[in-house]
Amino acid sequence: MAQILLGKEVTASLNEEIEEKVKTLKEHQVMPKLGIIRIGEKQDDIAYERNAIKRCEKLSVAYEKFLLPEDVTEEIVIDTIQKLNKAEDIHGVLIFRPLPSHLDEEKILNTLAVEKDVDGITNLSMAGIFAGKEMGYAPCTASACIRILDHYGIDCTGKKAVIVGRSLVVGKPVSMMLLKKNATITVCHTKTKNIKQEVQAADIVVAAAGSAGFIKKEHLRTGQVVIDVGINVNEEGNLCGDVAFDEAEPIVDAITPVPGGVGGVTTSILVEHVVNAALLKMKASEK
Amino acid sequence: MAQILLGKEVTASLNEEIEEKVKTLKEHQVMPKLGIIRIGEKQDDIAYERNAIKRCEKLSVAYEKFLLPEDVTEEIVIDTIQKLNKAEDIHGVLIFRPLPSHLDEEKILNTLAVEKDVDGITNLSMAGIFAGKEMGYAPCTASACIRILDHYGIDCTGKKAVIVGRSLVVGKPVSMMLLKKNATITVCHTKTKNIKQEVQAADIVVAAAGSAGFIKKEHLRTGQVVIDVGINVNEEGNLCGDVAFDEAEPIVDAITPVPGGVGGVTTSILVEHVVNAALLKMKASEK
Repeated sequence: MAQILLGKEVTASLNEEIEEKVKTLKEHQVMPKLGIIRIGEKQDDIAYERNAIKRCEKLSVAYEKFLLPEDVTEEIVIDTIQKLNKAEDIHGVLIFRPLPSHLDEEKILNTLAVEKDVDGITNLSMAGIFAGKEMGYAPCTASACIRILDHYGIDCTGKKAVIVGRSLVVGKPVSMMLLKKNATITVCHTKTKNIKQEVQAADIVVAAAGSAGFIKKEHLRTGQVVIDVGINVNEEGNLCGDVAFDEAEPIVDAITPVPGGVGGVTTSILVEHVVNAALLKMKASEK
Repeated sequence: MAQILLGKEVTASLNEEIEEKVKTLKEHQVMPKLGIIRIGEKQDDIAYERNAIKRCEKLSVAYEKFLLPEDVTEEIVIDTIQKLNKAEDIHGVLIFRPLPSHLDEEKILNTLAVEKDVDGITNLSMAGIFAGKEMGYAPCTASACIRILDHYGIDCTGKKAVIVGRSLVVGKPVSMMLLKKNATITVCHTKTKNIKQEVQAADIVVAAAGSAGFIKKEHLRTGQVVIDVGINVNEEGNLCGDVAFDEAEPIVDAITPVPGGVGGVTTSILVEHVVNAALLKMKASEK
């Protein structure tokens, strides 16, 4: 019987911290604010936006939406980002990706000022994660994984962390963040041989393969902590993770459920990044 | 009896490629040129500079030295870099580090234009390595490790690569480059438990621990390829690597010696980066 690492418990404690920070900001007449740039009307984007807005409202963080049509020109997108870079009242910017294919994503995303890059999409945020230095922000999902470990007091030092997946949104940044926390990291992917053996050797497993139920009982053993980043829809039409939860739960020591694990934490991390950006700006202006 | 992976063989083939590229450049009236910025008179810097210059001369690549006094101001260093950024005839810039402690290294290094960052010191080069995209250059030592594997036809796909060390100059970039080559990567460091077991599980070992003879026979097994990045001086005053060569050589399948392995390749990689930068500039101007 594993300990279930509940996203809502992490979120509750994270939200308390955010509320304290928002209070501090308001005492200094600063209203933290998120700018949201959405191009087109993709259902996934709209669903995430709705959750982000709800979380902002709950935590007294302002937001403003900048909605652009699917066939928007590169110039207009870049103008919009530059406007938000300059806007004194906007502290963080969320841009939904992937962008429509007629747009130069590399150029557009890197127009965003690193200090407002609250979802870690710019080259400078990536350099910050790679080098382990304070510059920009990690992608919210990657930060959510680390926050869950921290919340439940799981020390990473000297632990063997195996990350399944090497995406820029989860696998690579989580690997670098776990390395910074002194874990020994192993990154597995589709070309990995003996993936069962690799995952079984882990103390901490981060499953970000993007494949429903990819991690099964034969990958797992007693003593492991499993963070399931997968969000998939199974044959019955239900949300499920990259880990076969029913197989894993009797074996491992602790596991995040899907839904109810990493996903919900991500939205609060986004808001935390906005609030942290506002605090950094406030402190810089006080100097 | 291991195959000895000789740096000079890699360098010979690399130099041939460089000479071909230089020929192409000269047919287009382009003379590739390296700018070297050295602050102070550190012996290590001077030794590396001498080797770099020799390699440039051998390969018909021009160079120019910009020597600044140990107590130079930040303003002058930044002015120098900006001048080289703008200089049409300079294609790559080498800046010796660490800089004297009164200088803001982060600010100064990131003044360098990414397209001239032939030793991978800027944030944008780091982002390129992390994301696996074509932007800037990897640190020359990291590139040298990969080049040795390539030269000797060692396919990394699905192999287990264990990197000992997590520096920004070797451990981290080599890890990302091996991941891009579809290896399963494990990064070990001073906080790693069971380092013997971790290294023994590797197909490819990259030793960048910075500690003489750190990797011994008990870390090794038959079938392994060992790249030794260490440059240390042992008790007898001789150059030696991070691997106890005499213990390793009878066990593993292939190994780079120290001296005679990675070190010599690094200088040719530097020149190659300069030549590649010149080619990229030439191609861009033809468009």
